[in-house]
Formats: sequence, C-alpha cells, structure tokens
Amino acid sequence: MNLAGRDLLGLEGLEKEAIETILDNATTFSEVLRRDVKKVPTLRGKSVITMFFENSTRTRSSFEAAGKYMSADVINISGSASSASKGESLRDTFLTLQALTADLVIMRTPFSGACHQAAEWVDIPVVNAGDGMHEHPTQGLLDALTIRDAKGSIEGLKVAIVGDVLHSRVARSNIWGLNTLGADVHLVGPKTLLPTDADKLPVTVHTNLEEGLENADVVMVLRLQLERMAKALFPTPREYCNLFGVSKKALRAAKPDAIVMHPGPMNRGLEISGDVPDLPSAVIEKQVTNGVATRMAVLYLLLGAEG
Amino acid sequence: MNLAGRDLLGLEGLEKEAIETILDNATTFSEVLRRDVKKVPTLRGKSVITMFFENSTRTRSSFEAAGKYMSADVINISGSASSASKGESLRDTFLTLQALTADLVIMRTPFSGACHQAAEWVDIPVVNAGDGMHEHPTQGLLDALTIRDAKGSIEGLKVAIVGDVLHSRVARSNIWGLNTLGADVHLVGPKTLLPTDADKLPVTVHTNLEEGLENADVVMVLRLQLERMAKALFPTPREYCNLFGVSKKALRAAKPDAIVMHPGPMNRGLEISGDVPDLPSAVIEKQVTNGVATRMAVLYLLLGAEG
Amino acid sequence: MNLAGRDLLGLEGLEKEAIETILDNATTFSEVLRRDVKKVPTLRGKSVITMFFENSTRTRSSFEAAGKYMSADVINISGSASSASKGESLRDTFLTLQALTADLVIMRTPFSGACHQAAEWVDIPVVNAGDGMHEHPTQGLLDALTIRDAKGSIEGLKVAIVGDVLHSRVARSNIWGLNTLGADVHLVGPKTLLPTDADKLPVTVHTNLEEGLENADVVMVLRLQLERMAKALFPTPREYCNLFGVSKKALRAAKPDAIVMHPGPMNRGLEISGDVPDLPSAVIEKQVTNGVATRMAVLYLLLGAEG
Repeated sequence: MNLAGRDLLGLEGLEKEAIETILDNATTFSEVLRRDVKKVPTLRGKSVITMFFENSTRTRSSFEAAGKYMSADVINISGSASSASKGESLRDTFLTLQALTADLVIMRTPFSGACHQAAEWVDIPVVNAGDGMHEHPTQGLLDALTIRDAKGSIEGLKVAIVGDVLHSRVARSNIWGLNTLGADVHLVGPKTLLPTDADKLPVTVHTNLEEGLENADVVMVLRLQLERMAKALFPTPREYCNLFGVSKKALRAAKPDAIVMHPGPMNRGLEISGDVPDLPSAVIEKQVTNGVATRMAVLYLLLGAEG
Repeated sequence: MNLAGRDLLGLEGLEKEAIETILDNATTFSEVLRRDVKKVPTLRGKSVITMFFENSTRTRSSFEAAGKYMSADVINISGSASSASKGESLRDTFLTLQALTADLVIMRTPFSGACHQAAEWVDIPVVNAGDGMHEHPTQGLLDALTIRDAKGSIEGLKVAIVGDVLHSRVARSNIWGLNTLGADVHLVGPKTLLPTDADKLPVTVHTNLEEGLENADVVMVLRLQLERMAKALFPTPREYCNLFGVSKKALRAAKPDAIVMHPGPMNRGLEISGDVPDLPSAVIEKQVTNGVATRMAVLYLLLGAEG
Repeated sequence: MNLAGRDLLGLEGLEKEAIETILDNATTFSEVLRRDVKKVPTLRGKSVITMFFENSTRTRSSFEAAGKYMSADVINISGSASSASKGESLRDTFLTLQALTADLVIMRTPFSGACHQAAEWVDIPVVNAGDGMHEHPTQGLLDALTIRDAKGSIEGLKVAIVGDVLHSRVARSNIWGLNTLGADVHLVGPKTLLPTDADKLPVTVHTNLEEGLENADVVMVLRLQLERMAKALFPTPREYCNLFGVSKKALRAAKPDAIVMHPGPMNRGLEISGDVPDLPSAVIEKQVTNGVATRMAVLYLLLGAEG
C-alpha cells in the first residue's frame, strides 16, 4: 500500500492495510538494525525536522536514529527555543518549516489535536510524536509490531491495558490500532483513571486487576503520571500500587505465556513491580528497538522513498 | 570573486561584487534545493559550529540545513550551555572552537559588535548570524536575493522598510546591502522607532505610512518587538497597528506589483494585517527558502570549496 | 592491544599498554585532523549517544566531532531533557539507550562512580566524560598525548599539577595516567584544596608554589571552581591568586623549556595570569585539538572498528 505523502496523525481510522504495510516494512528494517553497519542510503538528500514542545529521551532519539540510519538529514528544534516563544502562530511556524525545505516534520505537543491542525496547513507529511492526551501513533505501531513478533499474529489475542488510561495517548493509539488488527482489547484501572467515553471505544472495561488480566495474552502496563496523581483523592500512589500494580502474583491470572509491555519511562515499584520488567516474558527493551525500526518504516513510506 | 577565508560580519562596507557573487551562487544552490535529492558533497570533511547565545528557530535551522545539504559536519552549541557560563572569556571560547578543528563558526549574540571582535581572534571565518541591534548579514542577503528573484534587478527599485527600524539588525543589513546594490531605501515608522543616526544612513525617512509606501516596489515589514514596546509611552501596540500596520488598504499606496516581505517571526494583526502574508504578492516563504540557499552560498564561498 | 568492547571509565588501574595503544592511535588520527578533508569512513553505520547531565562546550563538542569525523551517527541527549527527569532509574535509562541500538554511550554526570555503575548494566561500551569529582579519563589521555608530543616521552618527567586538586576529576585522571606512564607527579596547592587521601596517591605534595614548580617539565594548572571557593574561609580568590596563581614569575622555578597546560575553561587572572596562556610554552589549544584526536582513538578502539 502506497503511503507516500500521507500524514501519520493517529491510529484511529487508519486502514488495516496501512498498518500492516508499516509493520511489514518495520520487520524488514529490524534486519538492518541487527547488521554490523546500520546504515542504508534510502533517504539520502531528504531532510526531517523534529519539533518537540515537550521533553523526551526515547521518542526524539528514536526518530533521530531512524532518520540518520537511512541517511536523512535530521534537524532537531526544541519548542522552547522556537519562534512559538516569540508569539509566532503555529501555522506560521509550520509554513516556515516547510519553506526551510523540510521534507517531513515530526511534532510532539502538549495540545491534543495540534498535529491534525498542522497537517492541514502544509503539503509535507506530518508525523504525530504524541499530542496531549490524544494519540501517539508510532508507539501504537511499535507495540503492535512487538506483539506480532512474540505471538505471530494479533488477531484474536486478548490484550489488557492496565493503569491510567484516561490520560494516556499511548493507550488511545493502542486501542485503535490493536482493535483494527483484530485484538480483543481490555482496559483495567480505577474508575477515576478510565476514559469517560469508554462506552464509545471498542474495549471491555474492568476495575479489578485480576478480572482484567484473566487469560490475557498481552499485559500492557501504562506509566503512572505522578504529577497527576498528586492532585487526585483516589487512588493515592500507594493505593494504586496495592490495587493495580502489576506484580508476578497479579500476572498469574494471565495466560502462562503472556508477555508484559511498558512504553517507558517506568516507575518500578509503582505501576509495575520492581522484578517484573526483568522477567523473560517482559519485552520492554524489544519495544524500544522496534520503535527505531517502526519509525524507519514510517519515514520511509511517507517520504515515498521506495523504488 | 574569491571570498575564501573571509568573514561575513555585516553588509556595511561589503563590496558590490562580493554581494553579487554570493547572490549568484545562492541562485545556483536554489536549484539544488528543488531537487529530489538535496545533497551535494561540496563540504564533505569540513566542520561548522553554530554558537547561538539567543534562541532562534529559523536562522539556526537554516544554517544547519545549509551545512548538512553540502555534507559538512554541523555541531550546535547553545550559549547557555557553553563555557561562557563558566566565566570563560569570549576570546578563549573562540580559540577553543578553532582548536576543536572547526573550519567556520556561526555566531548569534545579543551584543552588537561581538562578532567583529571574535573574528579578530581567530583565523577561521566567522559568520554573524545576528549581533544585538547591529547587523544580520545573511538576512540582508537573502532579502536581496528574494527581491532580485521577483524583480530581476535591484538597481533603482524603491524599497520601503516599515516599523521598528531602531532596534532592527535586519533593517541595518538591508539598508547597507540594498543601497550598495543600487536601491532607493526608505524608512517608515514613528520617530521613536527610527534610528537616531538616520541622517548618516543612505536612506529617506518618513513618519507617515502612506507617504513612505508611495510607489514602492518592495514593502519590507519589520517584526514589532513587543517586549520593547511594553516600556514605550508611544506608540502602544494598538496605536502602532493603527498608524503603521501594513494592511491591504495601506498597500494601495505602493506600486500595483509591489512585493511584501517580512523576516519573521510575524505578529499577524499587529505590524502586518492577518491577511497580507497570504496575498500572492507576499514572498515571505520564499525568503525562508532563499535563506537556506544563501547560507549554502556563504558557507561554500568562505570555506573556499570551489574547484 | 585490542580494546574492542571495553569501557573507558577511568585511568586508575588502566594498563600501560592500553594507554599507549590509545595514544598511538590518537597520533594517527591527529594526521586526519590536519587534512583538508577531515573525514574517514571508519565508523560508518555505528551510532554513539552522548548523555550529558552537566553542561559542557568542549567535551561534548569534542566527542561529537570525533564521532562525526569517523562517519558515526551521533545523537546528543541532555540530561535535563531525559527520562531521568521523569523518575526513570539510571539503569532503565541505560537499558533503553542500548535498546535504541546505540553502539556506545558517552556520559557526563555530577555523581562520582555513576559511569562504573552504568557500565555494569549494559553490554555496549560506556565512556566516562567526567563523573563528579572522580575521573575524566579522556582528559587525562589527551593531556598525556600533549605532553608526549612536546617532550617525546613521559617517562621520568616531573609534572606539577597546581590548584584545586581536591575537587578535580581532571587531576585524578592525570595522576593515575601519568604515574602509569612513568612520570613523577607533584601536587601543589593550599592544604584546603589538596586531596585528603593524598598519602594513598602516587604523588608528592607541596603547599608552596615555588617548591612545587621547581625543575618541573610540565606545569598543569587546574581551573579554580569559584562556586566552591565562595564557601571557603581560606583561601579567598585573591589570596589564592597571590599564593598559587601561575604567573611568568612563578614559572621561573620550572625548567626553562617547561610547558604550561590548562584543561579549560580558564579564569585568566585567577589561577593563571592573563599573559601566561599566550606564551609559546603554553600548549592549551594543542590540548583541545588533541582531545578530538584522542576521542577518535577511544571510539575507534572500543568499537573494535579496526580491520
């Protein structure tokens, strides 16, 4: 499927064929990452700008590595240093990036929907690297790839997403992506951290951890955003940990061969027990590596570099 | 004209032939930017350091893109993270950059004249990317290129520079550069924002917008620096907008085929009406693209990469 | 000597043969730096991450240049923007960097020993770019190279290290490295700035500048960290300057052909007289250039790129 010139703004509504094209290409690029010389000339002479209005280690570095491994020129702009801080409108910022001869822009922003808006203003592809509490589509794709790598196929799997789903753009992208790929998605968490529109999402909701994890093939633990918890009456971090912390004991409810995922950065001992990320069933580092391969595929396909 | 080894500190006093050599080379590099593969090996094995003591999206990114498209190694240093914050003298900072084997240094600084000073200390070329209220020569050059692209020649054109000329390094560079190239330069603004030494500059001064724009071929609108306006008694931003804001109506005084320029970032609705930048006569995005081509030419020529 | 896959955490305990292998390779890379085209394909397809939890101009830029000149992909992460600020453990940060397919990580940290700890967690080489008051091994190596360049050999030379040895990771690395290479290392400074464990170090201690510099072949001046001095009762900066500032006069005690070194950034007029760094015997800029060559050698050898 030809994705040249398209944006990647979210997984909601993205065709199954498009997702599978990205995953298949990511599998090919995974091969490049295992080579001694991780460099292909695919995007030589193309330029990619990352524009991050929020801090990030892994996502920005992952996109930067993806671009550089394909020989693109990558230019990083941090939001705080940008003209936005001088009162320029977001539209003018994007028109400027395009005029700077960027071939593609990757943006992270605290504002849900800002990437969709930006994509309407420019002709070049825009990739959403996380917009507020909305979507983080490359995370959803790399998670799908990691599940597919471990289980062979996603169709029919039970995936339990545990934790602060309400505030999580990672969860949103996974819900849409995994549903499109045929998974049975379950959300697990205290009512105060579940989405208020859960009845409109293609999910089953649980407020009890054991019930939610029952027979799960995949346990995806979300980061607890402590700054938000601090303001909540319930649960406190300690209550959360007791009721929803994913421990070895809690994992007994899931299938014996269930895999454990986390988008990082982790609070070990809070949303996930200190020893769980080091279990053989944890694929957390594979998610990170798949992130690079997935982003290579996304840049490659959107920039129409094939053939 | 051979510019190898020279600095680019300002357009005041720069020979016409030197300016034209840069513009001619920039025109050639514009061609590279339109290619599918924007990469030439010209500066392979050369290293360029950008040292920005003030934030900037477009200028730093533009230089970085220019260097990378020519295969130079580009290293960015932000002033706040530099040794200057540890008490090192500017001279020692520059001697260090040179000893780090940089082939050229690009500096932005809040201090007028600091680039001239730095250039005396090192043997490698220094490019001024904006020094206080003094000069911003690559902006002046890219503006000249944009005018030449639109009008064929600069000789004899009436150029009206509108706004806060007093604080504008962009205006200073344009005044000198455009005068050298034979333009008739007019400054337009309230007395409080016109340079106090205007009588020593090769310009005509107007304090009435309609008079200033009359028969202009080029209307160059300057950014209003709100942080400075806040302290002024006159004009307030609202007064400024009423008296000097460049609107469609105000543009009727200029020639019918006049082009509208702005160095960005813009305050739409303040120094320029919200709809003017989207007119066909506005060449604001062309300025940005020409900025990359102009900086390619500058790096190429100063580094003596020819032949 | 094959250093492939090893870490570079400190010079304490590093074999003489390993140090000499690095210096010999650095000498070879110095040759590359003198070329018109400073670029070799040695590390093409390798990726290097710099992770700096403290600001730095010269060290980070020097590593970045070293990597880029050898065609590696270099990704910079500043500590303040990293996931560490979101509560991620240092171990998880390093596991993530490794999973991001980095081939080598360079870290600067305010915490002594943090690099050793990190190196135990990951399989890829870790290079210490300065850890608290502990070690800064590439600085020690580039200093050794600079002495060897000037004097032919280090064996038997008298090296006087002057100043705030107590807080200096540069001094620690030089003490171990130069001792291994056969130098006679002397420390000079006020008692309050000499290490409390000096009797366990292979050094002779002096609290009088003239005595300490007597017959020295090498005078290595340390940066006075003013923020620390501010809290001390003795010496004040003025007292320090009078008693231990390295001036032309003070240098008369050293051998006539003694060289003067400083790791930078310098406080001219404080720990070193304003005119001393500009003497022909000062090799301070050579240290900077040798820093790039030394870091090329380190990256090259640890990444096992030979042959």
